[in-house]
Amino acid sequence: MGKHLKQLELKDIKVTDTLFSSYAKKVSEKIILHQWKILNDQLEDADPTYCIQNFRIAAGEEVGERKGVVFQDTDLYKWLESVAYCLAGGHGLEFEALADEVIDLIAKAQEADGYLNTYYIVNAPDRKWTNLVEGHELYTAGHMIEAAVAYYKETGKEKILNVAKKNADLICSVFGTEEGQIRGYPGHQEIELALIKLYRLTGERRYLETARYFIEERGKNPIYFLKEIEKRGGYEFFPEFTNYDLKYSQSHEEPIKQETAEGHAVRAMYMCSAMADLAEEYEDEKLLAACSRIWNNMVQKRMYITGGIGSSGFRERFTADYDLPNSTNYSETCASIGLMMFGQRMASATGSARYYDAVEVALYNTVLAGINMEGDRYFYVNPLEVVPYFCTEHTYMDHVKPERQKWFSVACCPPNVARTLASLGQYIYAMDEEALYIHQFISSTAQSLIGTCKYETEMESQILQNGTVSIKARVTENGRIKIRIPHYAGKHKIFVNEEEIVPTIEQGYLSVDLSPGESSIILDFDVNPRWVAANDKVSADNGKLALMKGPMVYCLEEIDNGNQLFAVYVEENTKIKEKAPIDSLVGDIPTLSYEGIRLKNKSIGEHELYGKPGFEKEETTLVAVPYCMWNNRGTGEMLVWQKVRI
Amino acid sequence: MGKHLKQLELKDIKVTDTLFSSYAKKVSEKIILHQWKILNDQLEDADPTYCIQNFRIAAGEEVGERKGVVFQDTDLYKWLESVAYCLAGGHGLEFEALADEVIDLIAKAQEADGYLNTYYIVNAPDRKWTNLVEGHELYTAGHMIEAAVAYYKETGKEKILNVAKKNADLICSVFGTEEGQIRGYPGHQEIELALIKLYRLTGERRYLETARYFIEERGKNPIYFLKEIEKRGGYEFFPEFTNYDLKYSQSHEEPIKQETAEGHAVRAMYMCSAMADLAEEYEDEKLLAACSRIWNNMVQKRMYITGGIGSSGFRERFTADYDLPNSTNYSETCASIGLMMFGQRMASATGSARYYDAVEVALYNTVLAGINMEGDRYFYVNPLEVVPYFCTEHTYMDHVKPERQKWFSVACCPPNVARTLASLGQYIYAMDEEALYIHQFISSTAQSLIGTCKYETEMESQILQNGTVSIKARVTENGRIKIRIPHYAGKHKIFVNEEEIVPTIEQGYLSVDLSPGESSIILDFDVNPRWVAANDKVSADNGKLALMKGPMVYCLEEIDNGNQLFAVYVEENTKIKEKAPIDSLVGDIPTLSYEGIRLKNKSIGEHELYGKPGFEKEETTLVAVPYCMWNNRGTGEMLVWQKVRI
Repeated sequence: MGKHLKQLELKDIKVTDTLFSSYAKKVSEKIILHQWKILNDQLEDADPTYCIQNFRIAAGEEVGERKGVVFQDTDLYKWLESVAYCLAGGHGLEFEALADEVIDLIAKAQEADGYLNTYYIVNAPDRKWTNLVEGHELYTAGHMIEAAVAYYKETGKEKILNVAKKNADLICSVFGTEEGQIRGYPGHQEIELALIKLYRLTGERRYLETARYFIEERGKNPIYFLKEIEKRGGYEFFPEFTNYDLKYSQSHEEPIKQETAEGHAVRAMYMCSAMADLAEEYEDEKLLAACSRIWNNMVQKRMYITGGIGSSGFRERFTADYDLPNSTNYSETCASIGLMMFGQRMASATGSARYYDAVEVALYNTVLAGINMEGDRYFYVNPLEVVPYFCTEHTYMDHVKPERQKWFSVACCPPNVARTLASLGQYIYAMDEEALYIHQFISSTAQSLIGTCKYETEMESQILQNGTVSIKARVTENGRIKIRIPHYAGKHKIFVNEEEIVPTIEQGYLSVDLSPGESSIILDFDVNPRWVAANDKVSADNGKLALMKGPMVYCLEEIDNGNQLFAVYVEENTKIKEKAPIDSLVGDIPTLSYEGIRLKNKSIGEHELYGKPGFEKEETTLVAVPYCMWNNRGTGEMLVWQKVRI
Repeated sequence: MGKHLKQLELKDIKVTDTLFSSYAKKVSEKIILHQWKILNDQLEDADPTYCIQNFRIAAGEEVGERKGVVFQDTDLYKWLESVAYCLAGGHGLEFEALADEVIDLIAKAQEADGYLNTYYIVNAPDRKWTNLVEGHELYTAGHMIEAAVAYYKETGKEKILNVAKKNADLICSVFGTEEGQIRGYPGHQEIELALIKLYRLTGERRYLETARYFIEERGKNPIYFLKEIEKRGGYEFFPEFTNYDLKYSQSHEEPIKQETAEGHAVRAMYMCSAMADLAEEYEDEKLLAACSRIWNNMVQKRMYITGGIGSSGFRERFTADYDLPNSTNYSETCASIGLMMFGQRMASATGSARYYDAVEVALYNTVLAGINMEGDRYFYVNPLEVVPYFCTEHTYMDHVKPERQKWFSVACCPPNVARTLASLGQYIYAMDEEALYIHQFISSTAQSLIGTCKYETEMESQILQNGTVSIKARVTENGRIKIRIPHYAGKHKIFVNEEEIVPTIEQGYLSVDLSPGESSIILDFDVNPRWVAANDKVSADNGKLALMKGPMVYCLEEIDNGNQLFAVYVEENTKIKEKAPIDSLVGDIPTLSYEGIRLKNKSIGEHELYGKPGFEKEETTLVAVPYCMWNNRGTGEMLVWQKVRI
């Protein structure tokens, strides 16, 4: 087992980067307020969520039927978690009072034994824990516990933490292998992660052990879910679960034996994140090996160049190796957040920096694409190629939206993006007993205490521009900074106090020893724009190239390049020029320009569908912008993978 | 309004063509017997259909619950219709006794007022006609009536015809705009076509008028379906119908006002076929104009080069103009059969031969692909590009099977192919008051009486080989043959009694006057293999070519060309050589061979998903076989549209 990394306190990190701080500001300014209104059904043009109302009914403050999707409660918990992270960053202070109020309501809704779920309390009190496949009870509990841990850590207020502990205690007593316990596990993983967080906060082993139980019991024969379905008879909430596919929820096999990334991508990532945590906690090499296999299968065979996962638009799931369609894929924003969580934990459990390569790609591309620059529109689904008029409703393209949406009835992505951006620091920094780690090159300041040595760092990053990253580090004793070398770094240089050094490199980190006082570290990475090809087996990308600069994938948009982008060809060695950023896009990131060819077949008439070939080539100058910023200037076509002239 | 074409009697046509007679023989030898066993649940390795058992229960011969899908009865009716056509062709005589027996059973199941539907009779007698959206009652009745008309016409036996008339009379009295009648229409069109056939057989106007009513009432405001759903509350049979999309069943607008081919492709084709029949019967120019608009939209913007329709794998439906994905499409075999029906009727109503171009393409490609050469495996879905390991279950590819299946739980396609192949003569010949029409170049003999002139023809077609079609025609008086000029004919020649003539050409037909006695007509069409491109707006085919010869689309198969066919490139003007047919494929159709390039990128390692471009080109000789014959030599990749070197 490798190093175990610890996270810095969020309140000790301040993100100053123009790109991310712009988004983070929107989180506190807009998303949290917007979501509060949605939770309270105060928006006229949004469908009611009934979220707060459900809690009022469960708490006995109102009378009525509990409405909304069965896991609607989680909207509130994710909101609360985001508020906690914003408070840690010193933003959104005005929400603390609202949060405290709503915590009172949550506590009031909790039953005496610790049970807490508005659907089952109000609508189906006699059916608790009988529909783990679809009921989302453990998933909902998990989000509550995660929110509670975050809120307690940032505010020190115990009320919601006590609700969480009481609920977790109930779960620990209800589930397990002892006589009288239910030998089930969640249809949607999440509780495992939450219990581990609660254990790490409280030190109570039973939380960790129940998390381990849930992972160990999953997929064991006879399969609990099949017995449950047989007993219950068919579906209750989601008709698509008839003929239940065990792979969908990774319950086809014990996780420790699994080889590939399967099923619903968010479920898979949450499960793997918990597995990595458990492998670390229990020093379980076999479990870590399973994590490794699944990770490798994912990043080597089932991940988009944007860090998106879940190739199937139907059921938001993994499909087969190298099956990466660009226009019909799901690539849910939340799934890439899950990938970030999994990668972070793998880095911690193994001590290897390489996991952060995929984390970085997911963050800069799919996760950031999930939200518009104004912070009030979201993508749930993140295709790599869009022709808006093909995105028809009630068809195979129903899930693909050519423009970001205001909100979603299943509103997991917006609050998930919010909580990720509000807690971004956890992906930038980490520490162990002997060093401070820098994983992402996002301008920020941080402070930490490692042993008795106090670290204060200031990072100024131009990773998206010229590849220069300047770090000022002040330590009170001899210290060490370990810096991840990104996969695109090329022939990088490093200067410490203005002298070039040849640093030790281990597990993907370059290591810099610091003497007491202030040191300056300057990194010079190669971030020249580059053409990237895919493995020959990826049919969708065969004979195509994508354009990257540093961690950013670039794309063509109709507003800059006209329509029918699918008719564009580039040469394999086309020179790319960096141009000025587009004023209306944030982050001062250059656009890229290059020459291409546009194919036309004028021998086929307007009213003809098939006819004689008669291809003509027109020269064209193309302009590419960062993928994460597409659809910020109106609706139009978008394309990542461009055809190569052969 | 144009000419009104009449069909010849099926028993007066004998198909001798090696390709089609091979399939037709399988229909009588294998499909009908196989299906009989399935209807009777006599196959051990197939799921029970309960079909005959349901009729026994409805007839009071057995007791129990009626099982299977709500429209399961239609399996038996389609079987009966196929038997009728086989008998007409002089095949399958051994099935007549079984058919008579089962007709007795059907008659016994019919209720006193004419009602006949085993689901509603047994399971839900108080819910008759309350779920037109999903219940398929009118659809089921339509198939019974079609079978009855066919069986009566070929055998002269009246029993099933009387059942049909009684059932149709009930429907005519239940539905309509009069006081006390239901102002509904079918969720799945079919009854309209059946009632028109029954009218044409019996001359009873009420059948025609009720068919017209169903078309006229459809899509009128307020929408009947929405009222029905509101009254009934949600779905009963098909959960996917929650949030019912009116376009799915073409009920979003009155058919006469519709502009585009929308929704479920089979429903659309059955509706349009009925509309074309009605336009002809009522000489309704407006209705014919609507048919024309929908037809043109379909063949000019929404049809695959194989005559497949229904681009969306989800809900088997049309999507948007030029949205023609090659690997995820539905292109149901039944939908292309529906297209043939629609085209046949448009030709009759307008007198134009051009509709038969799409009919021919659909027949030779998608419809024939629907069945294997052995006649015991079927495709429901017909993609144009298949990589078998991407066809994963429970994902967006769930509907795509890389090999033909034994049977389907919703078994519309196998019997639909069976009845189409068994009644193929209707697409080859037709007549009006003054001429015999030849629409397809399929070796066969035919006889007909036009006025007082007796026609006897023998056609020997080499349309799939060298393009020569020889017709011997004997007439007893002065006669005329009109022969469709196919769209691929090129500079064709025609010889009558060994002399080249320059014939009159009108509406796509060349016209040959015949003197009493025997004449020889030889047609020489250009069937050199040709590369075909798609309209620039078809993103899926942009920069690609397909290979055709006559009406046949060719494809590459892994067995002849290795895998990763998606990495194959051809030159725009690559010369194509005709080679000997493959022994194990039927019909003596040449294979086509040409030089191509295979793209490889050796700079990306086995465990790498993305990396540096480093394309290399390998020369390769490719062999293409007819698309309809793919997957007759094992499971492997298949590709129609090949990339062009730019």
